Order: sequence, then C-alpha cells, then structure tokens
Amino acid sequence: MKVGILGATGSIGQRLIQMLEHHPEFEVAQLFGKKSVGKKYGDINWILKGNIPHYVEDSRICSTSEISPEVELVFSALPSPVAESIEVELAHKGKIVVSNASAHRMEEDIPLLIPEVNPGHLDLLQVQKETRKWKGALITNPNCSTIMLTMVLKPLLDAYGIEQVIAVTLQAVSGAGYPGLPSLDILGNIIPHIRGEEEKLVKETAKILGTYRGGRILPSQIETSVTCNRVPTIDGHLINGFVKTVHEVEVEEVLETFQNFSGLPQRLNLPTAPERPIRVTRKADRPQTRLDLDPMAIVVGRVRKINTMLAFTILGHNTIRGAAGASILNAELFEAVL
Amino acid sequence: MKVGILGATGSIGQRLIQMLEHHPEFEVAQLFGKKSVGKKYGDINWILKGNIPHYVEDSRICSTSEISPEVELVFSALPSPVAESIEVELAHKGKIVVSNASAHRMEEDIPLLIPEVNPGHLDLLQVQKETRKWKGALITNPNCSTIMLTMVLKPLLDAYGIEQVIAVTLQAVSGAGYPGLPSLDILGNIIPHIRGEEEKLVKETAKILGTYRGGRILPSQIETSVTCNRVPTIDGHLINGFVKTVHEVEVEEVLETFQNFSGLPQRLNLPTAPERPIRVTRKADRPQTRLDLDPMAIVVGRVRKINTMLAFTILGHNTIRGAAGASILNAELFEAVL
Amino acid sequence: MKVGILGATGSIGQRLIQMLEHHPEFEVAQLFGKKSVGKKYGDINWILKGNIPHYVEDSRICSTSEISPEVELVFSALPSPVAESIEVELAHKGKIVVSNASAHRMEEDIPLLIPEVNPGHLDLLQVQKETRKWKGALITNPNCSTIMLTMVLKPLLDAYGIEQVIAVTLQAVSGAGYPGLPSLDILGNIIPHIRGEEEKLVKETAKILGTYRGGRILPSQIETSVTCNRVPTIDGHLINGFVKTVHEVEVEEVLETFQNFSGLPQRLNLPTAPERPIRVTRKADRPQTRLDLDPMAIVVGRVRKINTMLAFTILGHNTIRGAAGASILNAELFEAVL
Amino acid sequence: MKVGILGATGSIGQRLIQMLEHHPEFEVAQLFGKKSVGKKYGDINWILKGNIPHYVEDSRICSTSEISPEVELVFSALPSPVAESIEVELAHKGKIVVSNASAHRMEEDIPLLIPEVNPGHLDLLQVQKETRKWKGALITNPNCSTIMLTMVLKPLLDAYGIEQVIAVTLQAVSGAGYPGLPSLDILGNIIPHIRGEEEKLVKETAKILGTYRGGRILPSQIETSVTCNRVPTIDGHLINGFVKTVHEVEVEEVLETFQNFSGLPQRLNLPTAPERPIRVTRKADRPQTRLDLDPMAIVVGRVRKINTMLAFTILGHNTIRGAAGASILNAELFEAVL
Repeated sequence: MKVGILGATGSIGQRLIQMLEHHPEFEVAQLFGKKSVGKKYGDINWILKGNIPHYVEDSRICSTSEISPEVELVFSALPSPVAESIEVELAHKGKIVVSNASAHRMEEDIPLLIPEVNPGHLDLLQVQKETRKWKGALITNPNCSTIMLTMVLKPLLDAYGIEQVIAVTLQAVSGAGYPGLPSLDILGNIIPHIRGEEEKLVKETAKILGTYRGGRILPSQIETSVTCNRVPTIDGHLINGFVKTVHEVEVEEVLETFQNFSGLPQRLNLPTAPERPIRVTRKADRPQTRLDLDPMAIVVGRVRKINTMLAFTILGHNTIRGAAGASILNAELFEAVL
Repeated sequence: MKVGILGATGSIGQRLIQMLEHHPEFEVAQLFGKKSVGKKYGDINWILKGNIPHYVEDSRICSTSEISPEVELVFSALPSPVAESIEVELAHKGKIVVSNASAHRMEEDIPLLIPEVNPGHLDLLQVQKETRKWKGALITNPNCSTIMLTMVLKPLLDAYGIEQVIAVTLQAVSGAGYPGLPSLDILGNIIPHIRGEEEKLVKETAKILGTYRGGRILPSQIETSVTCNRVPTIDGHLINGFVKTVHEVEVEEVLETFQNFSGLPQRLNLPTAPERPIRVTRKADRPQTRLDLDPMAIVVGRVRKINTMLAFTILGHNTIRGAAGASILNAELFEAVL
Repeated sequence: MKVGILGATGSIGQRLIQMLEHHPEFEVAQLFGKKSVGKKYGDINWILKGNIPHYVEDSRICSTSEISPEVELVFSALPSPVAESIEVELAHKGKIVVSNASAHRMEEDIPLLIPEVNPGHLDLLQVQKETRKWKGALITNPNCSTIMLTMVLKPLLDAYGIEQVIAVTLQAVSGAGYPGLPSLDILGNIIPHIRGEEEKLVKETAKILGTYRGGRILPSQIETSVTCNRVPTIDGHLINGFVKTVHEVEVEEVLETFQNFSGLPQRLNLPTAPERPIRVTRKADRPQTRLDLDPMAIVVGRVRKINTMLAFTILGHNTIRGAAGASILNAELFEAVL
Repeated sequence: MKVGILGATGSIGQRLIQMLEHHPEFEVAQLFGKKSVGKKYGDINWILKGNIPHYVEDSRICSTSEISPEVELVFSALPSPVAESIEVELAHKGKIVVSNASAHRMEEDIPLLIPEVNPGHLDLLQVQKETRKWKGALITNPNCSTIMLTMVLKPLLDAYGIEQVIAVTLQAVSGAGYPGLPSLDILGNIIPHIRGEEEKLVKETAKILGTYRGGRILPSQIETSVTCNRVPTIDGHLINGFVKTVHEVEVEEVLETFQNFSGLPQRLNLPTAPERPIRVTRKADRPQTRLDLDPMAIVVGRVRKINTMLAFTILGHNTIRGAAGASILNAELFEAVL
C-alpha cells in the first residue's frame, strides 16, 4: 500500500521515514512539507542518529495539493494548527488519514486509538463515515504520555477497577519537536510545566479508557490528576504513577497482570507490535531512561503498594511508541481489520 | 561562640565552612576529618564554586579526639554510620552537637528540628538530658527533601488540616554528596529511585509534623506516599506535591497562607533565617531549578486544585536549606532560646 | 549620564540591564525593542537567574524612532543585520553608540575596542568624525572568544613577540543568544563548528592587535588558526591556546607576566574594570567552567611549554566579559578619556 | 577458540562481553574479577544499555588463579596497576594476553598495535618470545584517543609526511571507566585536563607511527602537542587536529586519501574490522557526537587548510574502537597472521 507523510521534515516525520524504511506493508510514495516544498529530501536538516535513509534521499518534497491518487493512506505528523484543515480535506477526498496531531483527537466521531487498549473504538469510523460523508477516514493516536499511561492503566482497570490516578511525568526534550526547547531553557534545569500537556493527559485518558456505546464514547470517570515536568534528557518519558484500585491488589499479581498483558496487535501479529506491550523490571532502581528505553514496549518498574495506593514508574519512547510508532501501529490495525 | 565542623572535607562540610565565613555568632575554631587528619585544609579537594575561604586555608584538620575545650558546639556533616558513635560521644562530653546526619534523627528523645515548623520539639532536650545523662545535647535536622516538603505542609496543616500527601521528588546530584553519583549513571538519564530516601521522607515528615506531649512526639497520622527520582541537575530539589486537605481550600487563600507563613526564626530575626520562609511564584512554568533557586527560602509555584487535591511544585536548595543552612539555623535557634 | 539599550529584550540586553542596575555613571533611561514595542518590560521572557530588576519592570519598550534627546549613549545588543542601519542612524543623529553587534566591527574607522588591550584605537573616532560627519560616534567590542583570546595574547605579544597562534574554543550555549541552539542539538552532544565564528576570531584578533598609524589600523601579521566547538555548558567559554613566541619564554615568567598584566581601565579605576584582568591558576585541572568563571576577569591555567609552543587554557564569561560587560567597559573608557 | 576476560565486571569488560556475544571465532569461556570472585555474572552492576547478555548470566566470576587450560587467549580490561603483574604471569604461563591496559604499552618488546596502522609491529612478538622466554604473548592496544588520532595521521604520514601535530581532545566520561568521574565534577562543566592522558597520547603516537627495525621500534620524530579536555558527553571522543605536512596538500586529495585508507584487517576481512576505517563527512558542522558515532570506524570532518596547517575534526567511539573493539581486532589479527 502506498503511503504519504505529512510534515515529513519535522522530528516525527523523520521518525516515520526511519521506521517505514523496511516496512512489509507500507511503501512511502510521497513526502509532504510546507516551507520545504520543491526541495530534495536529502537536503533537509536530519536530526536523528545516522544519515537520511537512502530511499528518500532523492524524493522531492510535495505540497498536499499534489497528492497522488496512488497514495491511499497518509501519516500526519503535522503541527496541530496546520493539521486541522488539511487532515479533514484529505479524509474528505478519500484518503485514510492516520494522525499524530492533537487537532481532532477529542472530536466525538474520531477514534483516539491505542491498538492494545481500545481497538473497539475503531467502530467510530462507521459513525464518522455517516456524519461526515467522507470517502476516507481519520484515525488519531494520543499524546505520547497518554499512550504510556493508559497502556499501564488498561490491565489494572480490567483486573481491579480504578478509582483514582495521580501521575507525575518527567518528559524528554524530543517531545517538544524541533527546534522545540531552547537549550538555555533546559540545560541543567527542570521546567515543572508543559503547556497544555496536563489537560491533554486527563481528557485523552478519559476518552481512551471510555466505553463505546450507541455510536459514541462514554468517557471513563476515573479521577485523574497530573503534573508534567520537562527534564534534560533526549528521548524517553518517565511517569511516576499512583493508582487507587477498586479491588484489593497484591504486587506479585500486578506484576503478572502487566507481564501477561497482550492485545489485538499481538494476536494479529502486526509488524510493529512489540511481543509484549509491557515489560516488567524488578530491579530497585529501574527503569532508567538511558538504560531501559524500548522502541515500542512500555517498561514498568518499582511496582509497590504505599498506603492505599499502588505505585509504579513507567518508561516509554516518546517519539516511537508515543508518536511515529503509535501512528504506524494504528495504520497496521486499520489495514488488518477493515 | 567557638564551633567545630565534623566531616569538614565533605560536600556539606564545605558548605558549612562557606556559610560560616562571616557568621555573626559562630566562629569556626576547629575542623575535623578522618582520612585527611593532619592535612592543611587549603590542600583538600574543594568542590564548590570559587576558592577555599581564606580563613580556613591554614587550618590543620584534626581528629575528634583532639577536640578543644573551647569548642562548645559542633556541626556534624558526617556520613551516617560514622556519625552514630561520634555524635553521642561528643554530646556525652558536653558538646552541643548540631547534626545533619541521619543516624539519630528518629530516636525518641532527639529533636528533628526545622525552626519554622516545630521549634517546640526542642523541649525534647529536657528529656534527652534526663535519660541520657549527657552534659551536652544532640539536635538533628531532617533530610533535604523532608525539610522542603514539611515547610510547605506546615501552613497547610495549620490552616486546613491534611488527610493525604503524595509527593514526587526530582533531586539534584549534590544531594548524594561527593563523589556521590558516577557521571555515567546520571548524564542524560533519570534514575527513578534513591535508596532509603522515600522511607526517610515518610518517617521524618510524620515526626516533624507530630505533636510533643508528655515528653514524647506523637507522630502525625497523615497518609504520605512518596516517589523519589534523581535528575541531572547540580543543586536544587524539585517536589511535585498533591495534598488532600480536611477543609475546603481556595487557591488564592492558599497563596496568601504560604506568603504569610513565618516562624520563630523570623520573629527572633536569626542571622540565617530568610525574610520569608516560603516564596510564592504565580508564573505558569516556575519555579525552575536554574532560575529560581534560593539559598534558604522554599519557592512554591503551580498552586492549583485538581479534582479533590491541592497540587503544587516546590523548589529548595538541597545543600543549603536542606543541609548546611538547616544545621546553622538549628544552632542559631538553640543559642537564642536556651 | 542617561543611556538607552537597543535590543533590550534579548539575552545580552538582559545582561546589560542586570549589570547597569546600580551603575555609578550610567542611568538606564530608555529600553528599545522591535516586536515587543509598547509592552511593559516586566512582561517579557526574562531568562537570567532571579527576577527582572525592579527598576525596569514598569518601563515601556520603545521603538528607536522614539529615542529621547536626553539619552546621550546607547548600548547596542542588536542582532547584526538589524544593527547595521540603526547604529549608523543613531550615531549620525548624535548618539554615542557602544555596540556589541558584529555589523560594523571590521570597518576601517570603527574602533574594535578592548580597554585593556587597545585603548589607543579610540583615536579612530577622530577619523570617524571626519569621514562620516557624525555628530555622535560608534564604538564596538569584539566577539566573545576574541576578547578572551586577545586579553591573553596581548601581554605575551608585548613581552615575547608572537609568530603563531592556534586556538580551539569550547563555547557555551549562551553565546548563541536566545532562543539560540535547540536543546536537541546540544544535549549530550558536541558540535564542532560555529558558523562564522572562526573567521571573526581571526580577523578581529588581527585588528585588535594591530597598530594605529596614520589614521588607520595596520593589522597584526600573526598566523592564527582556530577551530570552534559548541559544548553543553550554559555560560563560560574555554579556549585551549598554543602560541609560538618570537623570544624564548619560561613558564614562571609567563605566569608573572599574566598576573601583572594591567591596563588603562585599571589605572583609571573604571567601575566595571576587574582588579586584575587576568587571574592565574596553578592547579593542574583548572580553570573549570563550573568552578572558576569570573564575570570580568579572564582565568588562565595549564600554562606549560610543549615542544616549541607555549600552551594554556583560558576561561572567560562570554555574556559578561565577552559581551555586556565589554560594552559597558568600553562606554566607561569613552566617558573617562573623551 | 576459548577466551577469557580479565576485569570482566568493569566498563570495558562489559563492552567485551557485549561485543563477543556472537563472535565467529572467540568463545567466552571464563570471566575473571577481583572483588566479585564467586558471584554470578548476572548479579553484577551492568552499566550498558539493555540487559546482561544471556550467555554470561550464569557464569561464575573466577580468580585468575583458576584459569582453565582450555582458555588460550585472555582479553585484559584490568586497571593498569593490577594488569602489571597478572598480564606478565599469564603470558608466562602460555596465554595470549591481548590487553587494553596501559601498564606494558611502552615496553620495548611489547607491540602497541592498531591493525590498520602498524600491523608490522607484531614482529616484536619474536623479540618478546626470545627475551622473556614466555610461552604465551602480550599484545597491547593504545589509549582511546591515540587510536583515533593515529588512524587519521597514518594515511597523511604515508601520503605527505608530517612535521608537526597539534591536537585538542574533547573526551566523553565513559573514557574514565566506572565509577569514574563524579557527576558533580562534570555536569554543566568542562575539565581542561585528564591526568596522564596528554603524555600517553604523545608517547604512544610516537611508538605506533615508529618504524620496526632490527628488533625494535624507532619512534617517530613528529613534534606532537596535545591538550585533553573532559566534556559532559557519555560516549565518543572528539579531536580537533592541526597538522603541518612535509609536502603540500590539497583538501580534496586529503579527503580521498582518508576515504581510500584501508589496511590489513580490511584485506583479511577480519570479523570486527569496519569496511572503511575512516568515514569522511563533508557537512560543515559534523561529525557530532550524538549523530555520527560509529562503533569501529573513525569519522573525520571539517577538513580544511588554515594558513600552514591542515585542520580537521575526528570522532571515534572511545569504549569500542578505542578500547574493547581495539583489543578484539588485535586478537583477530593475531589469530589470522600467526
């Protein structure tokens, strides 16, 4: 299947290009940009390790008005304000738009999808088709931290029920894109706030853990409180979570619940699906950003009971599992089930 | 008053020497070490900004067995295992021992003191004298993060009552002393655990916020849950706090409560006391480690209500307010009231 | 004397405001900006430690067209392309323009001034007045690294003559202004190139160490080779220098030469002049950025002979001695001698 | 061939274990330690990314006195003082000792080997055998920075002759081993000195580029001046080099010389040999530590002529090409030719 990439020169666009180089199902056929339209992709400022993959070096960056009829699906790594109209336009024209942008995530008929967590929300596409009269479709993935958090909450919710969640994030700078944070702002510093992030985490978590019924999502009613910090690391968000469950939990049982967690991507054996969505570490001082970061699996450690809370620490790769890889897995699921 | 410094070559010892250079009441008369006994202080490995203060450059480092009768008070910046016996021995011999070490903090008759928070706990010294038959005395200050957290909890407790506290710390490397953390462990990394720290925070907070009655401290019954992280900053611990109060709170009122908080050190105008123990910032993305660190005041920002919790972020200087300055303020209070 | 600041919201503008708060001769009367014209200065994004100084908090940011007749001297912290015409215009109108911008540094009749090194180059102002018919004047200071390097070369040149200089810089991120370098570019990284910097270092050094004769500067003929690196530190440039002198040198003599170096600012006792322009350290592993940075003095260490070269390491504060402080010292010298 | 690893728990020992996991010729049969003797290798403090390789998890750490007769070759990642006697002892007993330690590097009959640069120096083994009466042999590899520098100097020397070299290193913290540098020493800092490193670079370069004649190495007479800095990066040393060649050079020709450089390991197709020992980058601001680090190839960029010097910047992986990989390549060469 031929695919295009919107926002191909940005940091998530670059990750998509890197991850799709040898993809068994998707062939990158067109790259889209804005200021760089007309340039050779090989001439942009590549910010990931290593060189620009050979297969896109000679691609000319196109404007979305030039989209080829051959391109059936587009990945959108656009900044949210730009994504707003372009994504709708392309879905209207018949393209499958798989978006990492936040612009449409919270709309009623747009699936906000994590394949392991709420694959059933794809049913919204039916509603979407009817209301919007689109020939194509629009699927979104959540914010990076939301993905990591809900991946871990889901098995807890299923097994024990959840009353309350408190989460404190320590987020790497690549989460802010490129150029993103000025170095003067973050070298030797902690910034205890990320604009809009806490609101996203709360609202998106409620939608993802919500129930699809009668053509819409009833959001989950879990009380969720979040503080987000920016820290001087490059890749990898860490989340310290505290959860009050409905039913009593035992740590050993929770560890097993995490380890055994598996979803539709694993059953369908999707190309980008990790063998186990959650990796458990029992070492006292892990997971650590530098040592334990996994592209698509979430690592959970420090699982323990403190007073009435279950506490744990989560590590995930914000630009892979939390963005580019999330979109690719969504596209794979869409292809597999529809 | 002539004072000595135990553990004078370590990182807190160095801070003590720096802070006491121009102290109006205490004159540093003797420096104590272990491996460095006999050396000139000017020849040690000074790790703070600038040079070794002139006034100690020619001091010979002594063993505690050589302690001069002139020295009435000693500051202890010893590692805990070493502190255990030496502090007791010196208190027994008649010295006032003002300690930053954790060895004796949790003992029943030892004040664990923050002058703004629990000055009344100095009454334990009476009990101490009677039980231990010491000619001197032993006063301790809490762990760095405990000091910051309880300074902020105290006015909340007094004004609204507290049911539950959840705290996540982001602690700078200087908190681990010197040599402390290997650079390979923390450069570009977050370590989601600090050995023994969470336990200290919980137990010490309960003691400090406890009530002195009938010769002992009844620990506070607040449910406290803590996760500690080590982050790649040099000085300054940041704490993300969530508090469930007994009585309803309003953010504006809380800000005023913090701003107006003041204690005995302020009333007595102690030399090292900050004018206001708590500084409030209303900027959305503050306090930041690099920009807002204050030697003796705690900076609180991001005060907001989320669901049933009051949330906020605390910044404090771990080796000054959280260690060397804490000990000095304790000594000043002791001198002023006893 | 009432002064204005061009580019008052940028990182060097902020340093100027910070340094001029209590200046005995200059009173900041007007702040100039571009996009921020009309705003209160208290509302800008202040990036230095601590808060915006009270004395400018309520100042309205002006456009240069509103410059007051009372303002006799302006400090220019403008980006070079903007500086080009504005500085000329203001000099033409009668203002003394003391600039940190590179736009006019290399022009024949513009002094490129370091008060300790080439105060005599102020004589160019005579030429400037005649050729340009300006009522005012324009004085510039060099690039940050050039200032540090030439401050150290000057006493060597005077004492021993210099044939060849090789310099490798390790420059902090604040040298790139704000927002400057994206954090993704420099966290955990070294960038072995700074655009335009090597050329500036070579050309500016030749002009500063050149000789004023017959109304113009004959550039120095020292063979100078430079490589510039960007490193992940906040403030403080480090330079590893190798110098081939004309006459034989002895290390001890060089150390004395450095220590005794003193210039017109010291003789005139200018307010911002450091007591000694060069501070010498004999410790094997110094100067270090975090420990030894001095606002206005250059620190030199590791002075040694290797083969035919004299080698040393230089540390200087790039935004103070290398920029804001350099301009202020230039203004002070101008005031004192003209 | 069965091999052992001396110093298996240290940072280079860990790299050796990681690199040898799937080695086609060497099978790790025994791991040696000191304080950890008797422990399971799976229980040590693993400091590299990912987990301890499964194949060594259950190995018991042995003392060298327990060395098995089956082990023919040992890699030594010992600290120098410990290496001194153990290496000699094992060579005496008949083992091939391939060492990364500095203890014996400069001894007359010990090859200091970089397979691409001076494979002929293996002839020293004949001398070694005769003088020392060892049944085994001892081969060493140079210091990490020396390897990178001489790899680049070798093709220049062959093509143009070299009169003078000036090199400034920016070295990552992993070069100091583990625990190595305290984080307080290097976070946000540059240290302009590494004890003993400059001397090693000069002496080892002279030996490696020297000529084997009549049973000994005549050291090269190139005038070499070096300054070493420690910078806050994890892996990857950067070297800014300046070379005065005997014959005139052209940049384009030099780039080709670098690119075409190839040695015996490439001709013999040794398993660990990089396809090209030197990778050339023509981008203005490369090589960068975070983006360009290659395990076994040296990356050279910024090649340019300045005045009488050829200048360039070198990047190499200090613990792979500069240590563990260097030893493995030496062992592979030894196996292939002897």
